[in-house]
Amino acid sequence: MIFNGKEFTDTIIEDLKIQRSKYKGKIRLNIISLKDDSDMISFMKAKQKLAQNLNIECRVLQIDPKIKTKGLRKKISVISRTPFSKGMVIQLPLPESLNTQTILDGILETQDIDCLSSKMLGKFYTGKSIILPPVVEALKLVSENINLSFKDKKIVIIGLGVLTGKPISIWLANQNLPYTVLNENSSDFKEVVKSADILITGVGKPGLISEDMVKKDCFVFDFGCSRSDETLKGDCCSDLSCSFQTPVPGGFGPLVVACLFKNLFTLLNEK
Amino acid sequence: MIFNGKEFTDTIIEDLKIQRSKYKGKIRLNIISLKDDSDMISFMKAKQKLAQNLNIECRVLQIDPKIKTKGLRKKISVISRTPFSKGMVIQLPLPESLNTQTILDGILETQDIDCLSSKMLGKFYTGKSIILPPVVEALKLVSENINLSFKDKKIVIIGLGVLTGKPISIWLANQNLPYTVLNENSSDFKEVVKSADILITGVGKPGLISEDMVKKDCFVFDFGCSRSDETLKGDCCSDLSCSFQTPVPGGFGPLVVACLFKNLFTLLNEK
Repeated sequence: MIFNGKEFTDTIIEDLKIQRSKYKGKIRLNIISLKDDSDMISFMKAKQKLAQNLNIECRVLQIDPKIKTKGLRKKISVISRTPFSKGMVIQLPLPESLNTQTILDGILETQDIDCLSSKMLGKFYTGKSIILPPVVEALKLVSENINLSFKDKKIVIIGLGVLTGKPISIWLANQNLPYTVLNENSSDFKEVVKSADILITGVGKPGLISEDMVKKDCFVFDFGCSRSDETLKGDCCSDLSCSFQTPVPGGFGPLVVACLFKNLFTLLNEK
Repeated sequence: MIFNGKEFTDTIIEDLKIQRSKYKGKIRLNIISLKDDSDMISFMKAKQKLAQNLNIECRVLQIDPKIKTKGLRKKISVISRTPFSKGMVIQLPLPESLNTQTILDGILETQDIDCLSSKMLGKFYTGKSIILPPVVEALKLVSENINLSFKDKKIVIIGLGVLTGKPISIWLANQNLPYTVLNENSSDFKEVVKSADILITGVGKPGLISEDMVKKDCFVFDFGCSRSDETLKGDCCSDLSCSFQTPVPGGFGPLVVACLFKNLFTLLNEK
């Protein structure tokens, strides 16, 4: 079964619209952007489009990539405190000259809808956070939607990135669910992938997972996303013969963006 | 090779004594204890003994187990702010009636030598902490001492506990090192343990790992600790035929306590 990300995301968006209608004030989402390559612009456009759809003002602040860590952190602090600012997103990756975590730590906890500041991640790690990182929330929603239990399954995660592999591993650990994390160059890569009942991948390497590497009854969650020959591709070849697969494009992409806004409303209602 | 925990820990303690001599003021460590079973008392005594050895005042506060979460958190806040208080340890586990994490979150960051508050763990998660959880620090010190690199090794962790499995998994993830986490009832338990080049266990179940389950060239780090027939036992049978094993008792026990004090000095020197 191929997951229909668009259809499922639309149901989430309908719920967000109801939440929006209940909140009477103006809502502003600030997006900080330092680079301007085409991938980042397309990710940003998806956020802008959904914001508009939800009657949320989306302000993109294009900042000179030559800015210093301290300067950017100060800017973030000032922007967070402007009226109506309810969410803050920093488009990653930042230029290598900057200390990314120091900058992310400048986001107010009440506006950290991406769940990337040390404070918010500490709460997530200890199970005290009221929101989940968007990728984790998306995985949770989809698995609940298809009634997939992670218990007693062999779970394999590929990649330890800060946006996908690492937070998903913590989410599993918090539920006392064992798992295996692989790197694409792990020596037993193929063998371990083949043993997975649930495969979660977020590397960004098209064609990393091919037909022969996946069990027939495997559930495949593909968070990989890279541009190849002008089209978006996931880590997995399309139409794998397995029980369930999230495609790229049309899988997690729009859902993860919707989960960012779901977090915004959760934090907003908590205040 | 069987690791000599006592001998190695003595070298660490010598270094701590030098650090102590350089710090002129009085230092107090507060230990909060709610239960009084014999295991907890023995763990506490080890801390008291080393404190004395390092000319640190160790104050054990035995608190009525019927106290409420809010009341205990307030008490911790008050105690942390008394003069000379430089470290705060809460003996775990707390009674089930209490919200453990809420209480741990009451520890001041500058005194959280066990690295258990959400704030400290958030910094640890994002690689911004200047200390490591004591178990992680101990593992790091021992592996450095025997020149063991974790790169390109099959690393298996047994147990996802907050004191051992979970922080070690984050430490590995922060170094982009892949690993597998198992529960003792994982279906492929024996098979995966047997494939490990590096085995890290922290379950607390004597005899969980027997001779036939471990590769001859495996490095075994045993953080398990439970009382069986009046003696302390680890998760592994003693004298496994493998490259390296940390015994219980006489392995990590005293070293982890020393790492707690190492953290105290690191935080003290940072202020």
